[in-house]
Amino acid sequence: MQKVPYKIYLSESEMPKYWFNMKAVMKEKPEPFLNPATLKPCTPEELQQVFCKELVDQEFNDTDKYIEIPEGIREFYKMYRPSPLVRAYCLEKTLDTPAEIYYKFEGTNTSGSHKLNSAAAQVYYAKQQGITCLTTETGAGQWGTALAMACAYYGIDLTVYMVKVSAEQKPYRKAVIETYGGKVIPSPSDTTEAGRRILAETPDTGGSLGCAISEAIETAIKTKNCKYVLGSVLDHVLLHQTVIGLEAKTACDKYGIQPDMIIGCIGGGSNFGGLIAPFISEKIEGRSSIRIIGVEPASCPSLTRGKYAYDFGDTGKTTPLMKMYTLGSGFIPSPNHAGGLRYHGMSPIISKLYHDGYIEARAVEQTRVFEAAKVFARCEGILPAPESSHALCAAIDEAIMCRETGEKKTILFGLSGTGYFDLTAYMAYNSGTMTDYIPTDEDLEKGFAGLPNVPECVLMEV
Amino acid sequence: MQKVPYKIYLSESEMPKYWFNMKAVMKEKPEPFLNPATLKPCTPEELQQVFCKELVDQEFNDTDKYIEIPEGIREFYKMYRPSPLVRAYCLEKTLDTPAEIYYKFEGTNTSGSHKLNSAAAQVYYAKQQGITCLTTETGAGQWGTALAMACAYYGIDLTVYMVKVSAEQKPYRKAVIETYGGKVIPSPSDTTEAGRRILAETPDTGGSLGCAISEAIETAIKTKNCKYVLGSVLDHVLLHQTVIGLEAKTACDKYGIQPDMIIGCIGGGSNFGGLIAPFISEKIEGRSSIRIIGVEPASCPSLTRGKYAYDFGDTGKTTPLMKMYTLGSGFIPSPNHAGGLRYHGMSPIISKLYHDGYIEARAVEQTRVFEAAKVFARCEGILPAPESSHALCAAIDEAIMCRETGEKKTILFGLSGTGYFDLTAYMAYNSGTMTDYIPTDEDLEKGFAGLPNVPECVLMEV
Repeated sequence: MQKVPYKIYLSESEMPKYWFNMKAVMKEKPEPFLNPATLKPCTPEELQQVFCKELVDQEFNDTDKYIEIPEGIREFYKMYRPSPLVRAYCLEKTLDTPAEIYYKFEGTNTSGSHKLNSAAAQVYYAKQQGITCLTTETGAGQWGTALAMACAYYGIDLTVYMVKVSAEQKPYRKAVIETYGGKVIPSPSDTTEAGRRILAETPDTGGSLGCAISEAIETAIKTKNCKYVLGSVLDHVLLHQTVIGLEAKTACDKYGIQPDMIIGCIGGGSNFGGLIAPFISEKIEGRSSIRIIGVEPASCPSLTRGKYAYDFGDTGKTTPLMKMYTLGSGFIPSPNHAGGLRYHGMSPIISKLYHDGYIEARAVEQTRVFEAAKVFARCEGILPAPESSHALCAAIDEAIMCRETGEKKTILFGLSGTGYFDLTAYMAYNSGTMTDYIPTDEDLEKGFAGLPNVPECVLMEV
Repeated sequence: MQKVPYKIYLSESEMPKYWFNMKAVMKEKPEPFLNPATLKPCTPEELQQVFCKELVDQEFNDTDKYIEIPEGIREFYKMYRPSPLVRAYCLEKTLDTPAEIYYKFEGTNTSGSHKLNSAAAQVYYAKQQGITCLTTETGAGQWGTALAMACAYYGIDLTVYMVKVSAEQKPYRKAVIETYGGKVIPSPSDTTEAGRRILAETPDTGGSLGCAISEAIETAIKTKNCKYVLGSVLDHVLLHQTVIGLEAKTACDKYGIQPDMIIGCIGGGSNFGGLIAPFISEKIEGRSSIRIIGVEPASCPSLTRGKYAYDFGDTGKTTPLMKMYTLGSGFIPSPNHAGGLRYHGMSPIISKLYHDGYIEARAVEQTRVFEAAKVFARCEGILPAPESSHALCAAIDEAIMCRETGEKKTILFGLSGTGYFDLTAYMAYNSGTMTDYIPTDEDLEKGFAGLPNVPECVLMEV
């Protein structure tokens, strides 16, 4: 076996030609989406009013283990992939740990994160279907940027509803999206009924992701040849993200690396789901006892403190009902929370796997997250995204535990992106003004009180 | 021969173990530095008052063609290198050109540019020499960031004098440097005599690179165990940057790529010098007729409109005199100039090679540069630095010329960095408010009038 280099780059011919469909190997499948009006399972036709056909087909596919990546998407992937699997030699030395630490780094493209993996796929299918414009929402801006890049490449118009407070706080994110030709509309706006209603009720609101989603869906439905796209949570998004895990697995196998645990950050779950896919598959099939750990912010603890229940995907309650771990669609994390990972719910696939005991979850406070980010930046030379630093923080915890016990474990974590557009948060941390927030049980109860009532008889049926 | 992939990554074992010393192959060497007080050539001892010993040795070495890269620097390089040599398939398609376009991309590290190549080396040698703190200046901030990263890694204190207007306009750059533990002082400051003098004369000044250099040198001289480091212009900086060209050459040779021309942007000249080193060497030795093209801003045209003369390296006139193409050390480009590449002079090595006819130079206006950047970003997925986009602009011009003539030329250009911290400039371009500036001959005459008077008899001697 060769000595492991600092960075393992696969060749183009080693890049995945198929995505990995986790649902095909799950012993129990996630519960179906429900139409909130009828409480019946959604049909593909219903979802196609909003989403592209091929994506809906993928959303419903729970039988094909491998789904081919079209040539036109693989060409796009070659522009910025494969992403490196990095041996964190310098971090190991800094921590003085016997553990071997690896990270799969998705931040080498201009969007700065893994989001581009699904953006490319979704825009490609839209183009194939003859769609000429897409709408979406963005909060922190990674998804909006990724989508603008993909739309510029494939030649499709894009309208991004950007949470107003983000658009104001992150003018540079907005500028990147515009450089790629995307149209950015701060949300709430007067371009939709949903936006006008919210503006009438709360003229001074800074907006929310839920509101931006409602505006983007409304515009997609009302515009000719236009569809809505979403950057996380849904099964087809996780499917596209499995290029992360497949590349990581190939690289591990090539160098005989056998991770004892895989750690990822979780918000909607797409980066985490993509990373763990081929590894958890072996675990489900009983061929591996690898630990799989999702790390979420203590301020938005959907897995560790949420309820496994049917809930809406958006604050505006316009989406189908999804069975997932949720804090309630009305839950909004404290404004002092710096990074992304602020979604009230969780991918139905990840929720199910967690519920069935294949995944562990833990929550960390943001000052600890930024401390980990700083340690990492100084020895590994990459300024990590606050989101990714949740995984990093847990990986460092595990490596320090190894130092104490003397165990030589192999840790693989996902470094999903860079923090170049999150420097306001770093500035708050550097100056010591950053604080932590952990919701009380009473705070959470308020969110749970808004959960939709799905009768027991319906649950029996689905 | 294999089909060329989108991105060529060398393996660790293919990374250069030696830097390439261009001066050793130059038929005529660059003129020596002069001590401005005596007008005699500077001695190594004089330079060692400010710079580390090993770097001064490298500065004076014009005989050893290869200089070994110490193991401790190669380990650092492995953290973020090799950088990819990219075949710009998508750009070729967009331009509909028969030309083959390649670019060596130095922006994959957090400092966002090639500057880290020399920062690593300079900090390593400082550490070896027992130096405990370093000072430097930074304008746009790439050099300050790179140096902060290297100082964090090797464990040395760093003080960065950042041009005040940059520190105010680019708080995020400042935040990155501080995250890496660097101390940022907006210049002019009250921490030095030079700064206090300038503040007394012009209290409202936004500062200049020349002033920041003066402050950094003064602090280095007055502080125990402290040296000053510089990010461009000097021969040893170009030496370190040859890892760019050496990697590019190895990758080209591996895939049988024979560039007809190499294009780089030029400010101080380090990125350009590093890229062209092994290629121009073959040209000097008569084994190649490759075209080598340096591209500078029309607003700061040191090669295309400057004088080849002895001049100071800084506005404060504290450095040795260097024979170079210069606009005069008092020349300051128009404030509407957006990117870096605003240095009044040029690397003595590049100046000499240009003077001797091995290099072509051209100047481009910034709106054309940003137009090229936008085209590139949309099809190649990377948001380029404004500086790097000068090279890109010329590469696109050449590719379009090939489309018109039908010639199938091979173009290699240097993409020295990313534009993630330059979005204010992109915003100006996107909104149509960016303007061009070309200095008049009268403007330039003012700069030339400040050139030091070095008598003919001295020039005869050196």
